[in-house]
Amino acid sequence: MGNSFGQLFRVTTFGESHGGGVGVVVDGCPPRLELKEADIQQDLDRRRPGQSKITTPRQESDQCEILSGVFEGQTLGTPIAILVRNKDARSQDYDEMALKYRPSHADATYDAKYGIRNWQGGGRSSARETIGRVAAGAIAKKILTQSAGVEIVAYVKSIQDLSAEVDPETVTLEKVESNIVRCPDPVMAEKMIARIDQIRREQDSLGGVVECVVRRAPKGLGEPVFDKLEADLAKAMLSLPATKGFEIGSGFGGALLTGSQHNDEFYQEGAEWRTRTNRSGGVQGGISNGEPILFRVAFKPTATIGKEQKTVSREGEETTLAAKGRHDPCVLPRAVPMVEAMTALVLCDHLLRFQAQCKTL
Amino acid sequence: MGNSFGQLFRVTTFGESHGGGVGVVVDGCPPRLELKEADIQQDLDRRRPGQSKITTPRQESDQCEILSGVFEGQTLGTPIAILVRNKDARSQDYDEMALKYRPSHADATYDAKYGIRNWQGGGRSSARETIGRVAAGAIAKKILTQSAGVEIVAYVKSIQDLSAEVDPETVTLEKVESNIVRCPDPVMAEKMIARIDQIRREQDSLGGVVECVVRRAPKGLGEPVFDKLEADLAKAMLSLPATKGFEIGSGFGGALLTGSQHNDEFYQEGAEWRTRTNRSGGVQGGISNGEPILFRVAFKPTATIGKEQKTVSREGEETTLAAKGRHDPCVLPRAVPMVEAMTALVLCDHLLRFQAQCKTL
Amino acid sequence: MGNSFGQLFRVTTFGESHGGGVGVVVDGCPPRLELKEADIQQDLDRRRPGQSKITTPRQESDQCEILSGVFEGQTLGTPIAILVRNKDARSQDYDEMALKYRPSHADATYDAKYGIRNWQGGGRSSARETIGRVAAGAIAKKILTQSAGVEIVAYVKSIQDLSAEVDPETVTLEKVESNIVRCPDPVMAEKMIARIDQIRREQDSLGGVVECVVRRAPKGLGEPVFDKLEADLAKAMLSLPATKGFEIGSGFGGALLTGSQHNDEFYQEGAEWRTRTNRSGGVQGGISNGEPILFRVAFKPTATIGKEQKTVSREGEETTLAAKGRHDPCVLPRAVPMVEAMTALVLCDHLLRFQAQCKTL
Amino acid sequence: MGNSFGQLFRVTTFGESHGGGVGVVVDGCPPRLELKEADIQQDLDRRRPGQSKITTPRQESDQCEILSGVFEGQTLGTPIAILVRNKDARSQDYDEMALKYRPSHADATYDAKYGIRNWQGGGRSSARETIGRVAAGAIAKKILTQSAGVEIVAYVKSIQDLSAEVDPETVTLEKVESNIVRCPDPVMAEKMIARIDQIRREQDSLGGVVECVVRRAPKGLGEPVFDKLEADLAKAMLSLPATKGFEIGSGFGGALLTGSQHNDEFYQEGAEWRTRTNRSGGVQGGISNGEPILFRVAFKPTATIGKEQKTVSREGEETTLAAKGRHDPCVLPRAVPMVEAMTALVLCDHLLRFQAQCKTL
Repeated sequence: MGNSFGQLFRVTTFGESHGGGVGVVVDGCPPRLELKEADIQQDLDRRRPGQSKITTPRQESDQCEILSGVFEGQTLGTPIAILVRNKDARSQDYDEMALKYRPSHADATYDAKYGIRNWQGGGRSSARETIGRVAAGAIAKKILTQSAGVEIVAYVKSIQDLSAEVDPETVTLEKVESNIVRCPDPVMAEKMIARIDQIRREQDSLGGVVECVVRRAPKGLGEPVFDKLEADLAKAMLSLPATKGFEIGSGFGGALLTGSQHNDEFYQEGAEWRTRTNRSGGVQGGISNGEPILFRVAFKPTATIGKEQKTVSREGEETTLAAKGRHDPCVLPRAVPMVEAMTALVLCDHLLRFQAQCKTL
Repeated sequence: MGNSFGQLFRVTTFGESHGGGVGVVVDGCPPRLELKEADIQQDLDRRRPGQSKITTPRQESDQCEILSGVFEGQTLGTPIAILVRNKDARSQDYDEMALKYRPSHADATYDAKYGIRNWQGGGRSSARETIGRVAAGAIAKKILTQSAGVEIVAYVKSIQDLSAEVDPETVTLEKVESNIVRCPDPVMAEKMIARIDQIRREQDSLGGVVECVVRRAPKGLGEPVFDKLEADLAKAMLSLPATKGFEIGSGFGGALLTGSQHNDEFYQEGAEWRTRTNRSGGVQGGISNGEPILFRVAFKPTATIGKEQKTVSREGEETTLAAKGRHDPCVLPRAVPMVEAMTALVLCDHLLRFQAQCKTL
Repeated sequence: MGNSFGQLFRVTTFGESHGGGVGVVVDGCPPRLELKEADIQQDLDRRRPGQSKITTPRQESDQCEILSGVFEGQTLGTPIAILVRNKDARSQDYDEMALKYRPSHADATYDAKYGIRNWQGGGRSSARETIGRVAAGAIAKKILTQSAGVEIVAYVKSIQDLSAEVDPETVTLEKVESNIVRCPDPVMAEKMIARIDQIRREQDSLGGVVECVVRRAPKGLGEPVFDKLEADLAKAMLSLPATKGFEIGSGFGGALLTGSQHNDEFYQEGAEWRTRTNRSGGVQGGISNGEPILFRVAFKPTATIGKEQKTVSREGEETTLAAKGRHDPCVLPRAVPMVEAMTALVLCDHLLRFQAQCKTL
Repeated sequence: MGNSFGQLFRVTTFGESHGGGVGVVVDGCPPRLELKEADIQQDLDRRRPGQSKITTPRQESDQCEILSGVFEGQTLGTPIAILVRNKDARSQDYDEMALKYRPSHADATYDAKYGIRNWQGGGRSSARETIGRVAAGAIAKKILTQSAGVEIVAYVKSIQDLSAEVDPETVTLEKVESNIVRCPDPVMAEKMIARIDQIRREQDSLGGVVECVVRRAPKGLGEPVFDKLEADLAKAMLSLPATKGFEIGSGFGGALLTGSQHNDEFYQEGAEWRTRTNRSGGVQGGISNGEPILFRVAFKPTATIGKEQKTVSREGEETTLAAKGRHDPCVLPRAVPMVEAMTALVLCDHLLRFQAQCKTL
């Protein structure tokens, strides 16, 4: 349970960090969408470790294979299964972790729930699981672009107290990809890189905030009650590893304002109503209003660090652990494509739901 | 679509603020649970408007009727349908809203999505819809208490910049209910009440933060990937009206720390492992770890206010609107039982899922 | 669990035969469909007991109330809740059934599963539960008619060995409704009525077969694998009380033919391909092919009879039972609108699914 | 959509007959179940073509690989992905089918629905898709055996008019596997084999009936309303390729009896109630009653035959087709493990659902 996401554009991921491989099955994709492995590989390469000095140095090529659902370059309407083989084993690094629980990692809770866990790497809790999400997200993005010109741009907004200046109305993917920390503010990007490089040398780790904007989403996506657009986005984001918070539009800051300060006044732009401000973050009453959808996601610092920490063993003895091997000092640069992918999955699902309920009669 | 919540303990709400009534169908409730209308009415009375000078003065009795699923005081295992009739019409207050969109309300987006809306009150977007949630939550709480002694306490943590001191390990429902703003810090409660009363007289509204703690949740609730416990909680909270943010444990503040500062060290307490700190907020790798589950929800100020605002009409003309009638200057006191209810729904659902997957063999 | 049906046009029924009432919540209905209580009442009246000498003589008025989801005669796109109050109690007839299990009824299995049951009437297993289905089916039929002119006609094909001659291409609702047994072959209808009347006097009961035809269903409804159109129809039919079998097109008789005898040859009719024969029953590879969808459902004789039978008590003692009160000697006439309703639910759900997946791009 | 089955033990299949491969993801499997590829391979080998002269002579090794969810020989509680590579291409046999629709096959309806199809082999409609089901079914069978000693035996009951004598209370897997037609009546098996061999030489095909018995299923599986055990079995069976009918217990024959003839009288066997007859087929009110669950499935003759038939081309021209290559003259021997697998999926899902709802409190 819990390995599927979406109602109509439904993705099911599988795989542990070690074992045969990781991947995804996408069910409900419209037929006759042009799709090739390169479309997917592009985003997988952005998610992949080993891209720069500030991410985990593990070398994983993460080549994807489309197993089904595509024929002569077009989707068939049948499930699209995508597989990425596992390669980088190094299981000797994990021997100690078989016996000791990493603080604030999933080791202990998996054991409590299942009575068993794959202790090589993070097993199912490894960030490697997100390969399936990013692959599915690449397909969702194609559908969103083709159907409505929807554009999704995520970026590192802050690392610790280093906070970037970014205009969500104009920021581009190119700007985001122009540096290794994926922060479109070049001055702050330099500082972030230096800060991460420093913490890496200290065998410690850092957190931060990813911001994401969706432009040109049509009015009408999202459902009134439980499946509000922001509710599904919140779930999508909090389902990513290491996330601790989500806010949309004015967010926690909005709780400080009065109604007359916070409300977004309407005005007409030709035949369309629009809002002058966007404290709603593009969603009102759970439904997109055509303004940019804007939200932020808080990531805690990576749990696995080289510094020695107090912990307990599987057998219930108090001990210490200094994680061997190579760790990711800051997950945020790689989290950017994950946030984009999950956003695309939510929007694509609601696009199909809108089509079903509101375009049949 | 979008009116059901939960996989195994599955609730479906229905109803607009005006029309025959609002209610809920609860499917999947274990049989032979003692249940009577008074169990549900108790929480409905806490959610009800008109309880005090600082909430909306509308007088709604909100008497619930159990239509099915209970026989001689016990649940049957069949769907429990609960109905609350609508009463307080006053539709003349809404005549203007039939034509003009309230800024930051759901009026405009409903029209964009469906091409129709019940403009009396908020229709489906009214907080009245949460009656069904609170009723279902009352049942979920009984199951959680009986099966595992789980205790859920929510309270107003802050109104604007007025922030209460509360110890989540010891705060009690009695403390929360001891004042009309549902803030267990009596000094700050007084200030909050005064602030809300002031904004009410100004025909304006206020936001704030509700905090919620779950004590004695067993280890093992939550799923590794998409249905992480915090992901389902985030969705549950962002599905409540007027919410703009969610954070668990360290939340957005956790993004400022390093891994060695943030990680919760393990220690042994008898045969059980525990954590010395709780920046994880009771959840690790998506699964409860036995520590208190602690999270916060940001509520924006109520959108409907008496002050005049710029807006547009359904016909596309720019105009102004000063909402007639009686408005809720601050939704937070009434949001407390809503947060509790949604928390109970999430936990109860995961309790049943845990039972199914991990206790069958 | 198990009280909802459909993915996109999703209905949830509730209610026992005794208690507050029975009903349904319909989620996913397209907005702006004209709908009034009379549209639903019409089918409920056909399902209602007490219509003639050959059905159960219980007098139930079964007046429906639309509680939500409709505003000024049009659907809102929000959940449509429909309630029918229970009236005809007579619980003294059921006192003995509280203690003794009716053979081939649900009494014993409900107790085995839940450890409790509402022994008044059939409780949740009563045919009264189908009120919610028939009400929802009335809405589904309106959508199917409006969107594509789809027409659903069901009728009694046989009672025991009395088998009617009916042409599914031309049979009309009017023909079906022209007699109390709902068999469009007037000669056989007379014989069926006499047979049922005879068995009624013997305090016994009869079974038979309902046939159903769907005309003008568009090509393309149904999914290739698990949710084949015939698979969903089979589930829908076997979910009705007292059903023992389902067959589509050639059915069990088709197992006697060779491939060259069985295959439906294609030909062109203008720009459209069609089939000369229809042994497929309107579905090929799980997907509708535009020909009439034709299937049959076997109903066993009603389990509750006045004749004395051997059984056991709740306490495990062997005993006998002759059910008191008034029983339905043959469920088939009232099963006709139930079969229509379930057929409409399946088709409407697949219509919306087709729209979502195949009309978005 | 439509490629997943089950609520709690949820399987998602993927793959076309040509392309990278076919397989399944199983979500919700209990942890710590012993599982190795050989457990699955055993059933795949029974499903595989090329086993004997009376099945399709295509040689497919169908070696499965477990990609995830198993660690050191035990399930992890995470998704189990299983992949079988495609091998036997021979696409030149299919060139003509790219242009012409096989009568009574899925070719035309896939094109009508999706506007595209993989015309190599059956694509997604190929019986090869059932590899994923059989693999998942092997896991479900292990769970059922371990948890409750449940035993599932399916067999060929009839080929055309050749009908076997089989005692469902005692028939064994060994008996079924003792001949190539999988009919446990050795005399009739010989006749069936001769009949199939004859039709094979005529380039034609045959249908028949598979019967299945489930022994030692506990009381209480199945849900009262839409998810009745027989409803889910009916859907499961009608989702298999080439099926046209389903009946449980007395089935269509039961429609000929009176209630007093049909009802299964109860008696006590120690502390347990049982029924003397089993016309109910092991299910009453949608819930298993502890007696053997017994049902039959009608299979039409295989659609693809070597004999020339009239048909139309994709471009709308009337033409003829004599399918090239090697065809399966009778799918029934290979359908036996498919029926077992789908039965196991239904029962395992309901076992987990029973555990969740009825064993939590």
